[in-house]
Amino acid sequence: MDNNVLSELTRITTAVSYIDSPQEQVEMIVNSVSQSIGVDVCSLYQTDSNNNLVLLASHGLDASQPITIPQGKGLVGRVVESKHTLNVCSAPDHPSYFFVPKSGEEKFHGFCATPLVDHGVVVGVLVVQTVAPQLLDKASEAFLETLSSHLAIIVRTIHISDGLDDDSLGISCVAGSPGIGMGSAIIVSSRSVEEVKTAYAENPQQEKQSLKHLVATLNQQIDSDKATISQKNMGNIDEIFFAMQMFLKDPMFINLVETFIDTGYNLPSSLKKAVGQLISVFNAMEDVYLKAKADDIRYLGNRLYNLWLDEGGVKNIDTSKPYVLVGKQIDISHISEYSGDNLVAIVTGEGSLLSHVSVIANALSVPAVMGLSDKRLPSAGNQLIVDGYAGRLFVDPGPMIISAYNELANKESSKNAIYDELKNQPATTLDGVAVKLFVNTGLLADLSPGIKHGADGVGLYRTEIPFLIRDSFPTEDEQVQVYQKVLEAYQGKPVYMRTLDVGGDKQLPYFPLGIEENPALGWRGIRFSLDNIQLLITQLRAMLRASVGHNELHVLIPMVSSTQELDEFRDCLSKVMQQLSAEGYAVEMPKIGVMIEVPAAISQLPFWENKIDFISVGTNDLSQYLLALDRNNSRVANRFDHVHPAVLHELYRIINTAKSYRIPVSICGEMSSDPVAVLLLLGMGVTKFSLGSSKLPKIKYLIRHVVKQQAEALLQKALEKDNVIEIRKLANDFIQKINLAETL
Amino acid sequence: MDNNVLSELTRITTAVSYIDSPQEQVEMIVNSVSQSIGVDVCSLYQTDSNNNLVLLASHGLDASQPITIPQGKGLVGRVVESKHTLNVCSAPDHPSYFFVPKSGEEKFHGFCATPLVDHGVVVGVLVVQTVAPQLLDKASEAFLETLSSHLAIIVRTIHISDGLDDDSLGISCVAGSPGIGMGSAIIVSSRSVEEVKTAYAENPQQEKQSLKHLVATLNQQIDSDKATISQKNMGNIDEIFFAMQMFLKDPMFINLVETFIDTGYNLPSSLKKAVGQLISVFNAMEDVYLKAKADDIRYLGNRLYNLWLDEGGVKNIDTSKPYVLVGKQIDISHISEYSGDNLVAIVTGEGSLLSHVSVIANALSVPAVMGLSDKRLPSAGNQLIVDGYAGRLFVDPGPMIISAYNELANKESSKNAIYDELKNQPATTLDGVAVKLFVNTGLLADLSPGIKHGADGVGLYRTEIPFLIRDSFPTEDEQVQVYQKVLEAYQGKPVYMRTLDVGGDKQLPYFPLGIEENPALGWRGIRFSLDNIQLLITQLRAMLRASVGHNELHVLIPMVSSTQELDEFRDCLSKVMQQLSAEGYAVEMPKIGVMIEVPAAISQLPFWENKIDFISVGTNDLSQYLLALDRNNSRVANRFDHVHPAVLHELYRIINTAKSYRIPVSICGEMSSDPVAVLLLLGMGVTKFSLGSSKLPKIKYLIRHVVKQQAEALLQKALEKDNVIEIRKLANDFIQKINLAETL
Repeated sequence: MDNNVLSELTRITTAVSYIDSPQEQVEMIVNSVSQSIGVDVCSLYQTDSNNNLVLLASHGLDASQPITIPQGKGLVGRVVESKHTLNVCSAPDHPSYFFVPKSGEEKFHGFCATPLVDHGVVVGVLVVQTVAPQLLDKASEAFLETLSSHLAIIVRTIHISDGLDDDSLGISCVAGSPGIGMGSAIIVSSRSVEEVKTAYAENPQQEKQSLKHLVATLNQQIDSDKATISQKNMGNIDEIFFAMQMFLKDPMFINLVETFIDTGYNLPSSLKKAVGQLISVFNAMEDVYLKAKADDIRYLGNRLYNLWLDEGGVKNIDTSKPYVLVGKQIDISHISEYSGDNLVAIVTGEGSLLSHVSVIANALSVPAVMGLSDKRLPSAGNQLIVDGYAGRLFVDPGPMIISAYNELANKESSKNAIYDELKNQPATTLDGVAVKLFVNTGLLADLSPGIKHGADGVGLYRTEIPFLIRDSFPTEDEQVQVYQKVLEAYQGKPVYMRTLDVGGDKQLPYFPLGIEENPALGWRGIRFSLDNIQLLITQLRAMLRASVGHNELHVLIPMVSSTQELDEFRDCLSKVMQQLSAEGYAVEMPKIGVMIEVPAAISQLPFWENKIDFISVGTNDLSQYLLALDRNNSRVANRFDHVHPAVLHELYRIINTAKSYRIPVSICGEMSSDPVAVLLLLGMGVTKFSLGSSKLPKIKYLIRHVVKQQAEALLQKALEKDNVIEIRKLANDFIQKINLAETL
Repeated sequence: MDNNVLSELTRITTAVSYIDSPQEQVEMIVNSVSQSIGVDVCSLYQTDSNNNLVLLASHGLDASQPITIPQGKGLVGRVVESKHTLNVCSAPDHPSYFFVPKSGEEKFHGFCATPLVDHGVVVGVLVVQTVAPQLLDKASEAFLETLSSHLAIIVRTIHISDGLDDDSLGISCVAGSPGIGMGSAIIVSSRSVEEVKTAYAENPQQEKQSLKHLVATLNQQIDSDKATISQKNMGNIDEIFFAMQMFLKDPMFINLVETFIDTGYNLPSSLKKAVGQLISVFNAMEDVYLKAKADDIRYLGNRLYNLWLDEGGVKNIDTSKPYVLVGKQIDISHISEYSGDNLVAIVTGEGSLLSHVSVIANALSVPAVMGLSDKRLPSAGNQLIVDGYAGRLFVDPGPMIISAYNELANKESSKNAIYDELKNQPATTLDGVAVKLFVNTGLLADLSPGIKHGADGVGLYRTEIPFLIRDSFPTEDEQVQVYQKVLEAYQGKPVYMRTLDVGGDKQLPYFPLGIEENPALGWRGIRFSLDNIQLLITQLRAMLRASVGHNELHVLIPMVSSTQELDEFRDCLSKVMQQLSAEGYAVEMPKIGVMIEVPAAISQLPFWENKIDFISVGTNDLSQYLLALDRNNSRVANRFDHVHPAVLHELYRIINTAKSYRIPVSICGEMSSDPVAVLLLLGMGVTKFSLGSSKLPKIKYLIRHVVKQQAEALLQKALEKDNVIEIRKLANDFIQKINLAETL
């Protein structure tokens, strides 16, 4: 071939992208490849579960009958084993040659085959052959290798029936919130108004009537959503609907849609055009805040369009039976829209709000799995089993799986009965070590579950939620009210309030944080607060004012990475103390602590001995930074585990350092609710854990059944292991040995 | 006000975004605010360099004469000091009241003022006043506070003339590549075809002729770019033009433009419409690889449009005198397009390719500064001084600054003369410790400068560059050729070749890596290679084959974070060894090393004692992960310094661990070319550094003038310091003391 590789690749992959069926896609590919590089045969094989190679499509070979090359046989088998391209001048003369009968293969000599690799596994082989004995030229070889990377993604979606029940393990996902949920799938529509094909209407008056009706209906829906949320005590989440209602009332938007209707378009087409025009106006603006308005408009357009589709005959959602919310992206408003007693689980694809879904699902004790690719998302009405413990999803499972999970669910409820009895018991180990269990929270809705489960205080109060769900910064007085509620609910118990931690995946809708290439390594936490010190001052004033008369306030500083940041924070706090005293408030100095989540904090702890009263280890972010691994990224999430040896060794180092400088330590983050991690941390000497209220009873049960010295011995063994599998095995064997495996 | 805050904010900021002049923007804002929240006065003050407050705009006060409130005076001064909103019922009754004469302020009672804060500094105050004595309601207060955050960004761009020469320090930027460059600005056009306003042409035939002419001219330009690059031996960079030429030849594109011309549009409008249509087609595709084609089309459209503009009378670029390339985004193709003997510096704004520009600029020894906001970018013809050492830019500087920099430049050349003499001398300390200085490279063009400067080998050969600039994976044979050139050039000296490190900010144009929210924490380095093991196998085969007869190959594994990854790599390597031996190649086992750049690697070194032959510390990435700080992010770049105490303590830990397990250590990354860092590392016992070839002579000079024991003492003092400023001061005092300050 000439060296026009990119152009050929573009041509083929473009053509293929217009075809829906993977089978037709691969047929088009083998035909196109033969043409592009001028070979007589191009065949595509897929590896089945026994590593046999099944012919999927061929140009040039007779594929009318099923052709399978047994594992390891022939040149193709060799390519699978070596995972490496093989380019030979005359295949029949090669010692590994394996003739496939009835394929008509015997007349071909030139042979080049390249493996299709997906996540390290050979999923197929692409083979080209020529009658003439010849080595394939280098440009064509490079072309095949590059095309193979694209092909691997298509081929893995083609399902070969090989008699094995592949579904017995379900689909592997990211576990977002624990628990088991069984119900039918309700799709959170990802139909987009952008998909609408242009169409015309005969009666513009009628279309305008429909528009009015749609707008009125949506307004009512939003009002009722708000009512639901306030009933459920989910906090002030309703304010995110505010912007939407504003746009609905805005004549600019409605007039624009009507203008397109007057031109002759039907309602969906007019909606599409109006939304498109507004989006392009907002997108053209430099201001990030205004750019974000484009998303509101898009969301609004989609909701109106989906409303229109529903009225057009799409079946109503039945929430009278258990149901699972399924969507490419699910956000807070979706959850509030569809939440109810029968919401048993949540299943989502990728999305920047992944971590929020997880927070909310945990807060509401709804099982959730995440990180599914588009093609693996279930369809409406599918019966689903969501295993939020193991991160597995079963679609229309067979009776065996259903009965296994029913049993599991029964076990869960008997466990819960055991846990309930512990509510008023302390979390003390068998050898008398007293452990404190705090809750993580950020929603006012979450306060009562924590108290119900006997929490010893709030180990992490995330203050940003009131900031995230509003349409402007909350005023000092508004913040005072929120913080007072928290302190009052936990009267007499410590409350660790973290200062504003926006940035990263938490964007304020009304403040231009800007687009960052790596938000996790960007303008967030204390960096953002010190650069916008007026916000920090207002927040500290509100915290101190709310704390008057309680005096259980612990202020927690997020993302500290340098002594300078800590010093600036302390200066700011003492100025605020002076301000408030001068204003007549009887404020007391709160305890100050830093979140240990940036790895840089570890080695600097000795410098901070006299500057802080405590530390709280944020194991989620700390693990992510230590491993340089974004666990919300589905391409690498499988590599993430917080009992990674590196994480354990660094935690041990933190705890030993803190011990020698007499700095109290608490752990917040998901490790606090993972029994394996809790055992190891207990072995390190940790006696304060902060976790989601739903997990608290289980961890209390665990601690009450463990001897601390045994946990120390377990830890020492674990520290000698170089991999997660052996560490988890050690801990699980231990749990088995002390007879807790069934109850945890 | 009613609680329609977001809608009001949107309305105001939208209206403002249509206005160009900041002064008019602030006037519109004060008028809009008065209306929105129903107050009698709304005034905006800006802080000048003496912290006086200058009235910028007012609705309701008489601003016809300049009004200045002296520093700290009145309620407004109080807001500046407290950085906190002040809301009082009757201002004249307040003890801090300060009456501004002639403003007509005396009749107002109600008063609320909120600070405008930018990066922690109060840049102004927004004040509202009412005749009636009243506290401003909470919703309006929240509205003002939120608006203030937007206003701060506008206000900081308004320049108050206060008689001080603000330009004496120049504009602070990110230092991208060291050196001093003086010349006139050439703007790398960021004119976008999307800006074109629709216009029509009378003679379609003529427009089509122009199109043909433009296409032919562009084709020639690309050909000549390619020739230039190959002359300059910059490597195979020309292949990035390949895709562009393909599109130029593609009838689809040209036909589409002609179709619009036939409809009556003029050439730029037709170009815009054709480009827009193709972009929307490509953007609609799921495949990331195809989506990326949209960028090619956009680039092509912009180049054709800019070519058209040039022909329309824009002045030609004069490259006969020294010039500085200036652009919002500058990429490899821009540099090749405009590079020449008179290219003396590069100045760029933000952009995802930032780090590439830095790599290339360093490779070409061209000074560069980065991270300038749009508004600070110089204009065409401005005389510039680019200080790539200090990260400073001077626009049309006065004679004093020019003469100071001329002196500096002279010093540079006399230093270079001193350095040149050391070319063949070893890098040995005064007390006889032999240090090896290697070069970092990835461009074949960079091989000879390294040898010229007396490098002891290649400490980091980045293999990804041939992958990044091509349009398909390079074949095994092609890779063999490249690697052989490197090994031959450094015959008899060690060459550390890093396996493919794509992902992060390095995207392959032809492979769907996918969009990641935090690419730095994503699918990159060894993670990517193990998941696409066929690529790793091909690369290792190529390295081993190239190494036959040289046997100086050291294979370096990027981004290792677990023992499992290392084990998988070693398995793969031994399979490749077997394959090649079986095929008759006389391969020898290379030395294996891991890059220490993921913090998790540090604590796991003891596990790897018998699995690796050496380590190389990648201080750039390691520092970024330790500090959780993306230094390419201009919002936080000011917080980055690789001599951060945390980085030093972790490096010391790495080196001590390596010492006790007898694992050889080398350092690559920018620390190796920073004299302060080199002294501290030498103090830790490091004797192998890898750095850009242009910095090598300076570091050799430094090492030859230091006693190692003194560096050890310096290190111990530095380890006791908790901040960067004191650490740098210690080291700089030391450099002063040993009389090197002038020569380094």
